Amino acid sequence: MMIEQLLGHRTIRKYKGDKVTEALINQILEAGCRASTTGNMQLYSIIVTRSTEGKKALAPCHFNQPMITEAPLVLTFCADFNRFNLWCKLNHAEPGYDNFLSFMTAAIDTLLVAQNVTVAAESLGLGVCYLGTTTYLASEIIDILKLPVGVVPITTLTVGWPDEDPEQIDRLPLSAVIHNESYKGYSVETLDILYSEKEGRQDNRKFVAENNKETLAQVFTDIRYKKTDNIAFSRMLLDVLTKQGFMNH
Amino acid sequence: MMIEQLLGHRTIRKYKGDKVTEALINQILEAGCRASTTGNMQLYSIIVTRSTEGKKALAPCHFNQPMITEAPLVLTFCADFNRFNLWCKLNHAEPGYDNFLSFMTAAIDTLLVAQNVTVAAESLGLGVCYLGTTTYLASEIIDILKLPVGVVPITTLTVGWPDEDPEQIDRLPLSAVIHNESYKGYSVETLDILYSEKEGRQDNRKFVAENNKETLAQVFTDIRYKKTDNIAFSRMLLDVLTKQGFMNH
Repeated sequence: MMIEQLLGHRTIRKYKGDKVTEALINQILEAGCRASTTGNMQLYSIIVTRSTEGKKALAPCHFNQPMITEAPLVLTFCADFNRFNLWCKLNHAEPGYDNFLSFMTAAIDTLLVAQNVTVAAESLGLGVCYLGTTTYLASEIIDILKLPVGVVPITTLTVGWPDEDPEQIDRLPLSAVIHNESYKGYSVETLDILYSEKEGRQDNRKFVAENNKETLAQVFTDIRYKKTDNIAFSRMLLDVLTKQGFMNH
Repeated sequence: MMIEQLLGHRTIRKYKGDKVTEALINQILEAGCRASTTGNMQLYSIIVTRSTEGKKALAPCHFNQPMITEAPLVLTFCADFNRFNLWCKLNHAEPGYDNFLSFMTAAIDTLLVAQNVTVAAESLGLGVCYLGTTTYLASEIIDILKLPVGVVPITTLTVGWPDEDPEQIDRLPLSAVIHNESYKGYSVETLDILYSEKEGRQDNRKFVAENNKETLAQVFTDIRYKKTDNIAFSRMLLDVLTKQGFMNH
């Protein structure tokens, strides 16, 4: 049953050597592209990388995480107004999509498709891993994939046949992320309860110890997602939006 | 089979009067929240609106589209760094997430969950409609749902038991959105071929005629998604990001 598949989701980072056939790729992308899209404009493009050279070229953009060269299939999901703009111009219509709202609209379309492709791939036994690094070095990805103005990479999936069987990682209790009718505040006591399971897990405690930190939160703020990095990548990403023609207002 | 469900997706805008039970809501949200999330930070919140007053209050933010008051269930998906920031501070960690990259990271998490919730809901026979208006009047939604700094609404789903059986709308041929190894250009001839089915459809021709336009593209540029509106909403959305604390760099 589908809901069991969703509940059983695990990120897969190790893949068997077997190829993903073109027929299978088309099947998961066809299903993925049935995701809802703003005004049925389909404001996305998906770049399929299967060649060894292509994956090698992309690897540094993702800090050389091994999945990118080891997966048989890498999908870069891009917000794309270029195709729609060209179609408008061809049809005596003046596109007004060189602005931030239009970027967000295209990014939304793109991410709904990415998750639909994920669900489709997993339903056929494939495993996937999202690469959040896509928005960090977007400028380099743009050069490598030859993305024109109007196109910005948003997320990347590595896809392949699972060669590992990892334990499922934790999630906060549902009550942590759900609010009834309006946003609830979080008291210190509530936060302690909501995060206690996460903090108490063996894997997370090991993570804190290995990194010589006092708390799990410090692993995030001091090592994994640091303010100085976030600010540098923010500026680079805003520059990318300008360069790709989404900040003309 | 799951892939058939994805291929059969249709947006549902008319719902039966029947409620969606709390048990069912929790089931689809629990499955949805198994979507991949950056560093397992779960940077989202979901506001559940079921009350008549709540739906009435939100309706103008979505240009009074009837789905919002007629659906038994409205889910507003928000990018949320507030909860994570509070947890960091409580754990002697200094969060550095008041910047644009962090906003995009949270928005990505949020949209993957939204699509996972959609798939979960549809697998149980429910119908959903995305409201792209969420990013237009985000500031008003923030007031109504009492969203604190660090939280921005990204998309909305109306959910209910289908009371219509609409035809499936068109999609471009898969070849329109897929690129092998690098982005392909689109020649005039290629674009004509890729968009010919869409332009030729009876529903789209009717749409052009009803709006007194020459081409389908003009319906988008002159009526549905106009440059002046896009620019106004872009400025408002960037103001929202500033107000919600994501532009401190």
